[in-house]
Amino acid sequence: MRILAKELKTHVGEQATVGGWLHKKRLLGGLTFIVIRDRSGLTQALVKEKGEVEKLRGLQVGTVLEVSGIVAADDRAPGGVEIHEVNLKINVPVEAEPPIEIDKSLDQFHKGDLLDTLFEYRVIGLRNPKEQAVFKVQAEIVEAIRKYLRSQEFTDMRTPKLLAAATEGGAEVFKFDYFGKEATLAQSPQFYKQMMVGVFERVFEIAPVYRAEPSATTRHMTEYISIDGEMGFISIEDLKVLLSGMMNAVVNDVWEVCESEMTLWKSPKPVLPELIPSITMAEIHEKYTEATGTKTVGEKDLRPDEERWICEYAKENLGSEAVFVTDWPASDMKFYHAAQEGKPEFADRFDLLFRGVEISTGSMREHRYDVVRQQLIEQANGDPEAPGFKYFLMAMQAGMPPHGGFGMGLERLTQKMIGLQNVKEASIFPRDINRLAP
Amino acid sequence: MRILAKELKTHVGEQATVGGWLHKKRLLGGLTFIVIRDRSGLTQALVKEKGEVEKLRGLQVGTVLEVSGIVAADDRAPGGVEIHEVNLKINVPVEAEPPIEIDKSLDQFHKGDLLDTLFEYRVIGLRNPKEQAVFKVQAEIVEAIRKYLRSQEFTDMRTPKLLAAATEGGAEVFKFDYFGKEATLAQSPQFYKQMMVGVFERVFEIAPVYRAEPSATTRHMTEYISIDGEMGFISIEDLKVLLSGMMNAVVNDVWEVCESEMTLWKSPKPVLPELIPSITMAEIHEKYTEATGTKTVGEKDLRPDEERWICEYAKENLGSEAVFVTDWPASDMKFYHAAQEGKPEFADRFDLLFRGVEISTGSMREHRYDVVRQQLIEQANGDPEAPGFKYFLMAMQAGMPPHGGFGMGLERLTQKMIGLQNVKEASIFPRDINRLAP
Repeated sequence: MRILAKELKTHVGEQATVGGWLHKKRLLGGLTFIVIRDRSGLTQALVKEKGEVEKLRGLQVGTVLEVSGIVAADDRAPGGVEIHEVNLKINVPVEAEPPIEIDKSLDQFHKGDLLDTLFEYRVIGLRNPKEQAVFKVQAEIVEAIRKYLRSQEFTDMRTPKLLAAATEGGAEVFKFDYFGKEATLAQSPQFYKQMMVGVFERVFEIAPVYRAEPSATTRHMTEYISIDGEMGFISIEDLKVLLSGMMNAVVNDVWEVCESEMTLWKSPKPVLPELIPSITMAEIHEKYTEATGTKTVGEKDLRPDEERWICEYAKENLGSEAVFVTDWPASDMKFYHAAQEGKPEFADRFDLLFRGVEISTGSMREHRYDVVRQQLIEQANGDPEAPGFKYFLMAMQAGMPPHGGFGMGLERLTQKMIGLQNVKEASIFPRDINRLAP
Repeated sequence: MRILAKELKTHVGEQATVGGWLHKKRLLGGLTFIVIRDRSGLTQALVKEKGEVEKLRGLQVGTVLEVSGIVAADDRAPGGVEIHEVNLKINVPVEAEPPIEIDKSLDQFHKGDLLDTLFEYRVIGLRNPKEQAVFKVQAEIVEAIRKYLRSQEFTDMRTPKLLAAATEGGAEVFKFDYFGKEATLAQSPQFYKQMMVGVFERVFEIAPVYRAEPSATTRHMTEYISIDGEMGFISIEDLKVLLSGMMNAVVNDVWEVCESEMTLWKSPKPVLPELIPSITMAEIHEKYTEATGTKTVGEKDLRPDEERWICEYAKENLGSEAVFVTDWPASDMKFYHAAQEGKPEFADRFDLLFRGVEISTGSMREHRYDVVRQQLIEQANGDPEAPGFKYFLMAMQAGMPPHGGFGMGLERLTQKMIGLQNVKEASIFPRDINRLAP
C-alpha cells in the first residue's frame, strides 16, 4: 500500500512504501541518497544494499518507482524523515537525460531570454517543487475568490467565447470562419455579465478571454484568465468594499493554505486594510510632482512610474499595498460607462493598483436604456441592431438597475502575489505573438 | 435600507423595503397586486392607495422599483408574507412591453421549433424563476464537483484553448489566423491533463472546448464546458470509484442546496449506490437481445435505444440510475489509450451512462513512452515532432506512471440531472451551426 510523503512522519519506526518519481540521486562517500517526489512532497531514502544500488544504475530523474523501507526520523531530510533498509521497485525506467535539470533551482530561467527555455520545457520544469508552487498558489487564488464571491451571493456563470461580431476594440480580435460566417473570440464577458445582472443581480465568471495583441512585452498575453464580477443595486463605493473584501480573502486564504509555497518564493504577505484606501488621480499627480520633480499634474492617466510610486507611498503612509485610483476623466469613458452623479467631468470608475501595477478596473455602467443606446450610436459609432449590441440593448430596455463591476487578470494577480517578474510566468502554458505551444 | 425577499419573514409586523424588478401586476376587484423579484425570490405587495396605484400606470414588467410598507404574514403569497400600506419608488421605469412574458411559465418554449424563441430572448426569459433555476443548479453542480475533486487532492488548472495544430479529430476543428500562422481552438485538454499528471499527479479543469460540429441536433454544441480529470498511480477501478464518488457528491450537494429549483422542474433525486455498477458491453447486448428481440450481440458499440434500456434495467435491478459499460473493443482505441492487461482485445475503458445517455468516458492511457510514440506513428499517422505531439511525448519520455482520466460535459450533466430535453437548454447562450448570438 503506497502512502504519501506527507504521511510518513506518522509512521516513524514502521515499514512503509512511498511511490512517485525519482527526483534526485547522489552518491556521498559510498552511500546512495535518492529523493522521491509525489503529489504531497519529497521523501529522502538511503540506499545501501548493493543489489538495490544496482537497480538504480543508469536511471535518470523522472523514473517512476516505489521505495519500501523503515521510516526513520531525521531532521536533515525533507519532511523530517528518511527511509532506511530500502527495497526498490522500478515501475517505469527513464534512461534519457531530461532536457532541463529539475532537481536544481530553475530561478535562472525566470530572467530575460531564458524565459523561452522555461516555457519550451515547461512540462518537465514544472516537476520542480518551486515551479509548480506557482500553480498551487493560483489554484488557491481561484478558490479564495470563488468562495468569497459565493459568500456575497454571486452566481457563478459561463458565457460564450465564440461571438458573432467584435463588440469592443475591433483591432485586437481573433477572427475565424464559422460555417461560412465570420466569428470572433471574446475579449471580455462585459456585455454578458451586464445582461445577467438583470437575471441574478450578482454574477461572476472566471474564464479565458482572447486578445490578438501583436506585442511581445512582459505584460501581454493573447489568452488569459479573466475574473469578472458584476452586481446590481449598488454604487461605486459598494464595488470598492467588494474588491477590498475579495483581496483580503485571497491574501488570507492563500497564505494560510500555501504558506510553504510562498516560503519557497520568499513572498511576503501583502499588507491590506479592511477597506483599501482611495486617492484621486489629481491628488496622485500632485503628490508625485512634488515628491519627484517630474510634472504630471493635468495628465489624463498615470505613468507606470507614478503607479509604482503611489503604491510605495500608500504602503508607507496608508498601511496598504493596494490603492484605488478615482476620478478618471469622463472623456475616456466607453459608451457603456457611467459618469459620476453631479460631477459629469469624471467617470464613475476606479483602477485598483497593487504592488506597483494596475490589477483591476471597476466602474459603474450606464443603466438607462435611452442613454446607453444614444451613447452607443454617438460615441462608439455602433449599430444598435448588430448582434454584438442588439441583445445587450434588449436587456437594458427590459429594466436594469444601477450596476457596476470589475475585471481582473488571474495571471497578473498571481504574479503580484508571488512577486514574479513577468505575467507569463503565471500562466502554465502562456500564449503570445511568438508562442502557441506547448 | 433595502432587504431581500428571503429576509422578509423575519420582519412581520415591521416596516420594510424591498427592491428589484416588477415581475407581475394584476388588478383584482379594484385592488392592485404586484410581485417584485430580487436575487433571492419573489415578494407580493398589495397596492391600495390611489396615488400609489397611479405610479404604476403604464409601467411594464421589468420596471426597477422599491416597495416600502408593513410586512404581513399571508400564507397565500410567495414566501408566506405580503407587503401592505405600500409606498412605491420607481427607479427605472420600463414602458416597452417585453418580447416574452416572464411572469408566466415558459415551458412551451422548451419544445421543438420554439427553442429558437427561447434562445433569441434568453436575456429576458432567464428572468423567469424556473428558467434561471437551471443555471443556479449548474453553478452548484460545478461547486460540488470542485469540492469533491479538491477533497481528493486534485489540483485545479487552466490550459490553453489556442493551439498550434489540431491534435485529434482533424475535421471538426475551428481554424484561425494567428499572426500569420494557422492556429486551432482546443477540442479537449486531453494531452495537457496527461502532461500535468507528471507534475501534480491529480489534476482537473472545468473550461470551454470547441467542436466545429456541422450538425444541428439536440445533442451537439460547438462550444461547451468540459469537466476533465486525470490521475496517476491508479487503475481503471480507481477511476470508477472516483466518478462514483463525484456523481454522489453532485446529487447530494445539488439536491441539498437547490431543492426549491429542483422542485420547480419536478426533478426527482437520482438513485445511486456508493459504487456505480459495471456491466460489460457483451452482457448488455445479450440482455438487450433477449429482452427486446432486437439482435445486437457482437456489435462494437451500444445503440441509443440500448443505452436507454440498460439504464432502465439498472434502475430496476441494480438500484442505480447510472451504470459503467466496460470491455469496449480495443480496435476503436485512440493512440494514447491503453488496452487491458492480459486482455489486449479490450480497451481499458468505460463509458458512464446516466438516465439513458452516455455522460462520460473514462480510460487508462498508454504511459510507456516507446509504446505511445509507436502507436502515434502507426495508428494515428502522427508526426512526433509536430507541436501537438512533441511536448506530450516529451512528458511521457520524462517518466509517467500508469494514469487515466475522464471527460464529462457540464451541460449534458445539467440536462440529465434536471430532466431537460435538449442539451442546449443547459447552456445560457448556446452555440451551434445556426446560432452565434446572443
